[in-house]
Amino acid sequence: MDTGELDNDKRPAASGGQRRARPTIRDVARLAHVSVGTVSKALNRNGSLRQETRERIVAVAKNLGFRPNDLAQSLHRGQSLTVGLISTDSFGRFTIPIMEGLEECLADSRMSVFMCNATDDPVREARHVESLIGKRVDGIVVSGRRADLRPKLVVQSPGIPVLYVYSQTDDPEAYSLTPDDEAGALDATDHLVELGRRRIAHVTGPQRFEAVRLRREGYRKALAAAGLEPAAEHALTGTWSEGWGRDAVAQLFRRKRGSPDAIFCGNDQIARGVADALRERGISVPDDVAIVGFDNWEIVAAATRPPLSSVDMNLKELGREAGRCMMRIIGGEHLSGVRRLPCSLIVRESSGAAAARHQ
Amino acid sequence: MDTGELDNDKRPAASGGQRRARPTIRDVARLAHVSVGTVSKALNRNGSLRQETRERIVAVAKNLGFRPNDLAQSLHRGQSLTVGLISTDSFGRFTIPIMEGLEECLADSRMSVFMCNATDDPVREARHVESLIGKRVDGIVVSGRRADLRPKLVVQSPGIPVLYVYSQTDDPEAYSLTPDDEAGALDATDHLVELGRRRIAHVTGPQRFEAVRLRREGYRKALAAAGLEPAAEHALTGTWSEGWGRDAVAQLFRRKRGSPDAIFCGNDQIARGVADALRERGISVPDDVAIVGFDNWEIVAAATRPPLSSVDMNLKELGREAGRCMMRIIGGEHLSGVRRLPCSLIVRESSGAAAARHQ
Repeated sequence: MDTGELDNDKRPAASGGQRRARPTIRDVARLAHVSVGTVSKALNRNGSLRQETRERIVAVAKNLGFRPNDLAQSLHRGQSLTVGLISTDSFGRFTIPIMEGLEECLADSRMSVFMCNATDDPVREARHVESLIGKRVDGIVVSGRRADLRPKLVVQSPGIPVLYVYSQTDDPEAYSLTPDDEAGALDATDHLVELGRRRIAHVTGPQRFEAVRLRREGYRKALAAAGLEPAAEHALTGTWSEGWGRDAVAQLFRRKRGSPDAIFCGNDQIARGVADALRERGISVPDDVAIVGFDNWEIVAAATRPPLSSVDMNLKELGREAGRCMMRIIGGEHLSGVRRLPCSLIVRESSGAAAARHQ
Repeated sequence: MDTGELDNDKRPAASGGQRRARPTIRDVARLAHVSVGTVSKALNRNGSLRQETRERIVAVAKNLGFRPNDLAQSLHRGQSLTVGLISTDSFGRFTIPIMEGLEECLADSRMSVFMCNATDDPVREARHVESLIGKRVDGIVVSGRRADLRPKLVVQSPGIPVLYVYSQTDDPEAYSLTPDDEAGALDATDHLVELGRRRIAHVTGPQRFEAVRLRREGYRKALAAAGLEPAAEHALTGTWSEGWGRDAVAQLFRRKRGSPDAIFCGNDQIARGVADALRERGISVPDDVAIVGFDNWEIVAAATRPPLSSVDMNLKELGREAGRCMMRIIGGEHLSGVRRLPCSLIVRESSGAAAARHQ
């Protein structure tokens, strides 16, 4: 192999006010009166070298502000200390807390995260994967929309671990972390049952979302466990919007008779629309009708009148767990299958203290 | 320098189902019947080598799926093709589009972005900078809250360019990109003036925000240019919330006489509260009162009744421009000072077609 080719001192010379030369391994060698090879041995703690010589070289390097180069170290440790995060969707409200948790967890192991936004474009995604392989990432985390199973991430280079979070693929060997929507919905509905509500409606998003199907399943199981029969006209699917929440109230309260005394909503935007429409009809929340949303989108939940009880998917913790699992896979463990992590119910006034008085 | 120390084939052996060995430079050498040094020369296109030999080696490497290692290439090109993004605040609604634009722009130059969340913690920030220097990033972009000037990012290693976006520091040598709040506010107020409104109120956030001061300045300049005198009781500061928007309406409409015929709001949440409170008082938007918000937070602007006109800070473009500027600085240009990029007014129904009928 050509010596010097992978040397770390071939940065371009200073070329502007913001770029001054960094100290190089050659500077250390010159000042310590040894060869570059000896400096390399000393800083990488390998090869045979007298303790005294090693210490002297380390001191010179430190004085000079020379940092052993992670890039170079990566090459012979065989780890780049980097992980790529590919989001198939744009970085949004759901991806961000996951990203934060992942980054926070991995930073504790000195791992850094490359963020790659594939914007649902397979060509862009392939280009990102190519670039991540070139940078010798130790693993790739795929995040994104959950609506459908996504195709397996194509990684040409074997041996790079891939983990899916808030995203699933049809490959049974893949490992995927996702919130437990069904259990979250079951808890929310249980909470309404415990408040003494008996006519609990469910207003949710489009049928094609797995999250919609799982949350409805949780809703049904909680009602069944309480011996309640869900009225068919009380389970409504629509869009993920405030407008749909308002329209659903118009449908549910067309007749006073048999109208719901609680509404579990598929997300917080729907719940916000439901709360506004009920207020505008003079129906009191939570006295007449209690509301629980889903997502615990703080800024919406807090601004709703009254503030919204909601199911939190604990996305930051999901991101942290993805980081921990990635470290285990990098360490050689084999993980596969879909793992669902618990949600938490956050109780605010829309199903809160005031609602208890109703019983 | 020790030959072989920086070799790229020292990855650990396969240690689990998800980790198979990647082809190494040694595999290529063995199959091509040449030395590792010769492979390195061939793939890096340097050293003297017969064209025929070079081509044969490249073909073997390609067949084997061996990728020239960016890490190794980085070392002798002197560029790591990576940029660090440090957010002083959490990644939020404002940081995300900036991040997306930055990543999109840099990806075109094969640069990858490390995301580092410093969560406003100086110790965490220092640790991130340390780690980025170790990874030999070609530059660092600092993003975050704009409320106050932040301290200059401390980078121990000289020569690493730093650029601030949606964030400013007190160092006059620093280069900072930020939206032009004043011009955006001026456009919004002008728009209301052109609709024939004469009693234009301004309901905004906390005084201590630079954005509040700049937007108010734009509002005042637009009124002055139109020969309108802003009523002192029409300029109200509060918090960035819907609740404050509702309270402000209560203040502004305490007396019918002299009440505003338009309200320019400091952000979309305030505008949402204003719209709700006006509707609940039976005041028609935009017929009686036109509203313009700020931020163009789509999900809020679209859900408001009627949908909200708002000033868009073009944050994704701000991120793209940060990427372009970073490439120029890496290329040796010296940039300094604060540069303000234009906002765009997005007109929807709250000040839209219906409002024109008012004239």
